[in-house]
Amino acid sequence: MEKLLRGAAVVGQSGGPTAAINASLAGVIKGAIDNRDTITRLYGMRNGIEGFMAERLCDLSEMFSDSEGKPDEEKLDLLSATPASALGSCRKKLPPTDDREFYDNLISLFRKYDIRYFFYIGGNDSMDTVAKLSKYVSGSDYEMRVIGVPKTIDNDVDGTDHTPGFGSAAKYIATVSQEITVDCSVYTTKAVTIVEFMGRDAGWLTAAAALPRLTSGLAPDYVYLPEVAFSMEGFFEDIEDAWKKHPNIVIAVSEGLRFADGHYVGEGTQSGATDVFGHKYLEGTGKALEIAVKEKFGCKVRSIEINLPQRCASHIRSATDISESRSCGIAAVKSALSGHTGQMIAMIREASDEYRIIYASMDVANIANAVRSVPRDFINERGNNVTDECIEYILPLIQGEIETKFEKGLPKYITL
Amino acid sequence: MEKLLRGAAVVGQSGGPTAAINASLAGVIKGAIDNRDTITRLYGMRNGIEGFMAERLCDLSEMFSDSEGKPDEEKLDLLSATPASALGSCRKKLPPTDDREFYDNLISLFRKYDIRYFFYIGGNDSMDTVAKLSKYVSGSDYEMRVIGVPKTIDNDVDGTDHTPGFGSAAKYIATVSQEITVDCSVYTTKAVTIVEFMGRDAGWLTAAAALPRLTSGLAPDYVYLPEVAFSMEGFFEDIEDAWKKHPNIVIAVSEGLRFADGHYVGEGTQSGATDVFGHKYLEGTGKALEIAVKEKFGCKVRSIEINLPQRCASHIRSATDISESRSCGIAAVKSALSGHTGQMIAMIREASDEYRIIYASMDVANIANAVRSVPRDFINERGNNVTDECIEYILPLIQGEIETKFEKGLPKYITL
Repeated sequence: MEKLLRGAAVVGQSGGPTAAINASLAGVIKGAIDNRDTITRLYGMRNGIEGFMAERLCDLSEMFSDSEGKPDEEKLDLLSATPASALGSCRKKLPPTDDREFYDNLISLFRKYDIRYFFYIGGNDSMDTVAKLSKYVSGSDYEMRVIGVPKTIDNDVDGTDHTPGFGSAAKYIATVSQEITVDCSVYTTKAVTIVEFMGRDAGWLTAAAALPRLTSGLAPDYVYLPEVAFSMEGFFEDIEDAWKKHPNIVIAVSEGLRFADGHYVGEGTQSGATDVFGHKYLEGTGKALEIAVKEKFGCKVRSIEINLPQRCASHIRSATDISESRSCGIAAVKSALSGHTGQMIAMIREASDEYRIIYASMDVANIANAVRSVPRDFINERGNNVTDECIEYILPLIQGEIETKFEKGLPKYITL
Repeated sequence: MEKLLRGAAVVGQSGGPTAAINASLAGVIKGAIDNRDTITRLYGMRNGIEGFMAERLCDLSEMFSDSEGKPDEEKLDLLSATPASALGSCRKKLPPTDDREFYDNLISLFRKYDIRYFFYIGGNDSMDTVAKLSKYVSGSDYEMRVIGVPKTIDNDVDGTDHTPGFGSAAKYIATVSQEITVDCSVYTTKAVTIVEFMGRDAGWLTAAAALPRLTSGLAPDYVYLPEVAFSMEGFFEDIEDAWKKHPNIVIAVSEGLRFADGHYVGEGTQSGATDVFGHKYLEGTGKALEIAVKEKFGCKVRSIEINLPQRCASHIRSATDISESRSCGIAAVKSALSGHTGQMIAMIREASDEYRIIYASMDVANIANAVRSVPRDFINERGNNVTDECIEYILPLIQGEIETKFEKGLPKYITL
């Protein structure tokens, strides 16, 4: 146990929204208020590190404490039910740690507010921020502990069994896939419906579309992930095979599908633009396949891009995910209080028959920017579906429902 | 009261699925089983009239009766919770009634199964089937009563205050619009998000995207309906106006948006194909606007097509809609038993402060093929949003929630 560090804390959210990122925020808030003797005040940074640099802060300790100074559980629940990042987000990439001016400027701000704890909730790019910031601060004369809480629907962060936010997205995707499969089954005409899910490099989200196969049987015929090179020939053969069983085929595809030569399937229809992290901005994998199928078979084809709802559909959250996401936030506070810095909270699945998660702290430097893909043995040999093992890995993560609070017929949210 | 007509009944579903069409089917089944002295058996036709002509029938009386011969309420609830058409659907348009061979062939099938009641659940095209069939049968020596139950998420059937299925779709659309608006608000960069909803000629579904405006305030900035000619100039001005308030703009558009000259906004990106009813098959209104905004402003733009989920998202149904849809099914049986034919069940809203619906029978000949649009006074003068009056019309239809039954983390359905 390191020496007690008393002072303020700040928490921020970064990267794309999820249905669970506010549950992690609620966890950090609860953890901080429960330890108000040490963490004297918890600030929220609006729009991540970018907003912090502009000193756009709010006092979360005050907002979420009840009259007795205890965490206001009802308000925390409402926060957990609110989709997207309640504090706002940003996509700011920090410069290398040799940019002393940049980091010294940050430290002077930490000093100004006496910030001794820095919590950052985000995906791979946010863990990069945690890594750089903790590295620089550790080499300075300012004492501050920096802890990351993973969050991404993509489930592609290394070092953790899965990421907070993935379970709710997977539950939504499995539900939508089941609904679309049922919807498409009503006609007797030969038709192909292609459903595109997010996933630039990792196929976890698309894999979730296969879940109903083991539960109701109402699942897409095929699931194509970016982890396996896509073959248009093989794809056409698969379609002809499926037609031997029923006229209506439903196919799930990842946005990041690539041919063996490395070109994206949607490349013909994409803009070629990149985001600030240099990731290629993709669109139209489903659309490209729709056109290809139409040309090849001349049948009825439809492509559906599920798009944003898969990351913000908080009306159908996984209770497991929301509970774990909050626990990760609480674990981050505990980890910092026990003296850690430059760490990310990770979830470790116990090797037992029953699903059980242990929360741990990991060195973020080993994790940042590494992408965790769907392992090859989670995908069948033909590369057109996931294995039962893959489904069994995801299934516990979508279990349980949380009753949505409605007001005048619509889900109720909180605004910070 | 006309003379008692004893015999079998048949029920079918036609047209696009909705989240409530099975609730209407459940109503017809309940109505039939409750009157088993007169309706000796209720057949279900698989894939609508097309399946009936191929004698693809199932015995719904048997499937949904308990050991005492009463309706199995639990099973009926599960049927109501299942999206899409449980009996399957078709898009068969009946020939004109002077095609004697076609209709005489149908009548010989009715005779074969002693079918004296014909219930058809569907949209405008299905009401056309009800109109033709009842007309022909009435002029024949075969006695059979033909009743239509309206169903369409589009809410564009004439003669009824609203259509079964619209309330659930509107609740889903309002929920998704609220989620997307929250999701898009997290960044501080100037951006435009265009969300496209179904609606070829009528803007009811898109209008529902405005609902959160009167509840949470988290709603799209603008809502453009096909009822008003679209102006690209005006659209650009609207965007510039909204940017004065906040950087992230969310815009809801109908798939059927048209310019003043009658051309579809999405025409540049559409296939030009038509469906069997001669309706132009549209796609890409949101995509066309995305490209236009990108060219004009060079800012971040995204278009989202909500697509099938808006008609099959049974995990977030309106309790009001489901209850009314079932009541329409029951009302159809009552109407037929009381001697009516060639009628459609309509909902009439009582002119009172409290929302109340009365079920009535209407001559289907006056209704079939007429499209009910959003009235001009439900749209603001500028044509870029709906009025509070419009929202107040829709709001009662989305009230109430029905708990979804989950099994292994996914909604549970019935298969017939």
